[in-house]
Amino acid sequence: MASLEGIISLGPWGGLGGDRWSYRASGGIAEIVLRVEGNIKSISFKDASGLVSGTFGGTGNDPNDRGKEKKIAIQWPSEHLKSISGTYGRYKGVLAITSLSFATNLTTYGPFGTAPGETFSIPIADSAVVGFHGRCGYYLDALGIFVTPADSHGSISAGQWGGPGGDPFSFRVGSWIKEIIVHEGANIKSLSFKDGNGHEYGKFGGKNANDTGEERRIEIDGLSEHLTSITGTYGDYAGMVVITSLSFKTNLATHGPFGKATGTSFSIPIEGSVVIGFHGRGGHYLDAIGIHVKPRDMEGTISIGPWGGRGGSPWSYMTNRGINQIVIHVGSNIKSISFRDTTGLDSATFGGENPKDIGERKTVLINWPSEYLTSISGTYGNFSTLLTITSLSFTTNRATYGPFGTGSGTPFSIPINNNTVVGFHGRAGHYLDAIGIFVKPQTTI
Amino acid sequence: MASLEGIISLGPWGGLGGDRWSYRASGGIAEIVLRVEGNIKSISFKDASGLVSGTFGGTGNDPNDRGKEKKIAIQWPSEHLKSISGTYGRYKGVLAITSLSFATNLTTYGPFGTAPGETFSIPIADSAVVGFHGRCGYYLDALGIFVTPADSHGSISAGQWGGPGGDPFSFRVGSWIKEIIVHEGANIKSLSFKDGNGHEYGKFGGKNANDTGEERRIEIDGLSEHLTSITGTYGDYAGMVVITSLSFKTNLATHGPFGKATGTSFSIPIEGSVVIGFHGRGGHYLDAIGIHVKPRDMEGTISIGPWGGRGGSPWSYMTNRGINQIVIHVGSNIKSISFRDTTGLDSATFGGENPKDIGERKTVLINWPSEYLTSISGTYGNFSTLLTITSLSFTTNRATYGPFGTGSGTPFSIPINNNTVVGFHGRAGHYLDAIGIFVKPQTTI
Repeated sequence: MASLEGIISLGPWGGLGGDRWSYRASGGIAEIVLRVEGNIKSISFKDASGLVSGTFGGTGNDPNDRGKEKKIAIQWPSEHLKSISGTYGRYKGVLAITSLSFATNLTTYGPFGTAPGETFSIPIADSAVVGFHGRCGYYLDALGIFVTPADSHGSISAGQWGGPGGDPFSFRVGSWIKEIIVHEGANIKSLSFKDGNGHEYGKFGGKNANDTGEERRIEIDGLSEHLTSITGTYGDYAGMVVITSLSFKTNLATHGPFGKATGTSFSIPIEGSVVIGFHGRGGHYLDAIGIHVKPRDMEGTISIGPWGGRGGSPWSYMTNRGINQIVIHVGSNIKSISFRDTTGLDSATFGGENPKDIGERKTVLINWPSEYLTSISGTYGNFSTLLTITSLSFTTNRATYGPFGTGSGTPFSIPINNNTVVGFHGRAGHYLDAIGIFVKPQTTI
Repeated sequence: MASLEGIISLGPWGGLGGDRWSYRASGGIAEIVLRVEGNIKSISFKDASGLVSGTFGGTGNDPNDRGKEKKIAIQWPSEHLKSISGTYGRYKGVLAITSLSFATNLTTYGPFGTAPGETFSIPIADSAVVGFHGRCGYYLDALGIFVTPADSHGSISAGQWGGPGGDPFSFRVGSWIKEIIVHEGANIKSLSFKDGNGHEYGKFGGKNANDTGEERRIEIDGLSEHLTSITGTYGDYAGMVVITSLSFKTNLATHGPFGKATGTSFSIPIEGSVVIGFHGRGGHYLDAIGIHVKPRDMEGTISIGPWGGRGGSPWSYMTNRGINQIVIHVGSNIKSISFRDTTGLDSATFGGENPKDIGERKTVLINWPSEYLTSISGTYGNFSTLLTITSLSFTTNRATYGPFGTGSGTPFSIPINNNTVVGFHGRAGHYLDAIGIFVKPQTTI
């Protein structure tokens, strides 16, 4: 059975004292042990396999500053963490976690700790917690989490931030956020987006025709650059609480800020992720905004191929969820190809740019996770004046689908074992010029 | 630069109370913190990257049973752990670690803890410590380590056990321990071995011509079955301390015991390993014995191919160290192939079983780790009546070597990226009938 995992890091929240710590669980979190008196002295975890994490914090020698043990038993898997919130502030001169609450799908444990401080809340409603990290010494100085998407979308949501007005919106893309169109002035007037397939989302906000601001466009190629997070501010504008400024962070640059930074600032300390959608509220202006992110998990992936011609433009598609549908358009060569993963999101369509020759649609359905792609084979040869993929077959652990396409040419195949196909790459334009695969080892963990 | 890692688990030693714990360091061990008074209350670690492990043990609420903090600072990398020894016994009714000593290449820290108990010693002289595991609760109940080979041999040694007589011996094989010949009676009279290449090692012991015992043979195929450990006893025989009984453990079975179990028993709790050699002492009898082991690290490996014919017998070779030499014998097809890794050990020779047609010797040298194998390509076709590999090239991140062999036929190639070749497989007999590769993703960790 196929198993894939991508990890996103959120936080930490708290102080910068003590030493860094990091804990990856081997199963669901089944027990949390705190020592508490005033602030949080220490924290430890036990997972469903019975492994304990060690105790983070609580290394002071003062016997009057050890706190009392508080044990939270979580009946995993019927019970699981849905959010963690708390406060951090000064305690005996140290900036540390001063209180913590743990909410599960069944109840809320806490708050533990009574010392005051800044509040924080860790959004994990649509994630599975796979570990914790932070800083520790005498006390628990800081706390963050490692999560992997647990809902059917394969993504997690952060935010939203802003005001309560306008209408709600939410969208996710299967390819990538390719273009962002911002209308800005003293606040954010509106946002709209295009994905890698050219589909448009929005406009969100922008309904005050007398105050539409100036247009700005951000282009993101999806190969070298990808969107990782947003930061901004929200506050009063014309008597409403709306988004007043917004920046878009990629792996390469920060685009913005757009608008004018006034009011309360927001940001989310997040790593290992790529933004695949947005949610929020829009009316006269952009009232509120949040992001949908999925893990960006290139680590441990091998690229094989591509085979075919040198025409067209390079393309690539990778998912951390199972690929369960492939759509190809075929004739005497392969016109185009697209993919869908178990979250239901479609990739961009690669090729198919000759509207006079789109071929016949063929669909391959894969019964993931008991069935999963392991390899491809096919032929490439001349079609008109172009060297393109002329036929293609898909191999899973259960069956081979195809060949699709009636063309002939040079055969290629990849006899490979102990692996899963997690993506595809190649070149495409009028047709599918070239194709290769991204694979990962099958692990028994 | 290529990086490969295989992990061996040793231990734990101690009691069965408390919870299991496991800690993998992100760098060299730079600090160990104990709490000690009578026994070991708790242990924690910091690695060279500054990450701390959490504290294992010390969860009791009695303020008079917390012990005193003892901090060991290790000047890694100039200073590193060479052995850990200690005792375990009853303390306030709990079977737990009662004392610990840490020896580095520069000094010895401890012993910490004064309570009595059974002694244990963890052999890590030729390893790098990459983590710890054990059991914990009120106290440190048990302690074991994770190691990876650090010496030039790519293996670690366990033991030896037995008496001081006879002459020392030690050997390692580059293929596998294929045959063990035991002469047994009321003790072990002698041992000898054959590796996958047919090379012989020994006889060790067996010099009393009047007491040579009866011969037993164990065959291990190296594909489905491999040697993992030994257990046995040593004690008095004819006025000498010698090995009195011996069992050989594989992944499938225990072969033995041979001899008669009298005296002191020995065994080593070891996981994730394969025995690639032996050391000890031999004279009239087998005076002492120990093992050389290397990590068996199939996890995360993808098999690609093989290409070629269906003749000959299946073969496979994998190493967790860099491959830095390939020797092939060639003519108008590939006669044979063998490999050497950075430990200097040669694999078996695959093919080359037609003594009238051994071809010309060619050597490829690879400057590992800055240069590492990424792929192969070649042709297969008819040679006499056999379908064999007729030419072969080797691709590294720096260069392509070959083609070797002047034959022609069907071409094959593997356009692959982000990977390292960690082994080869195929079929062979008179010639090299077929060849494929084992690959792992290149990781940036």
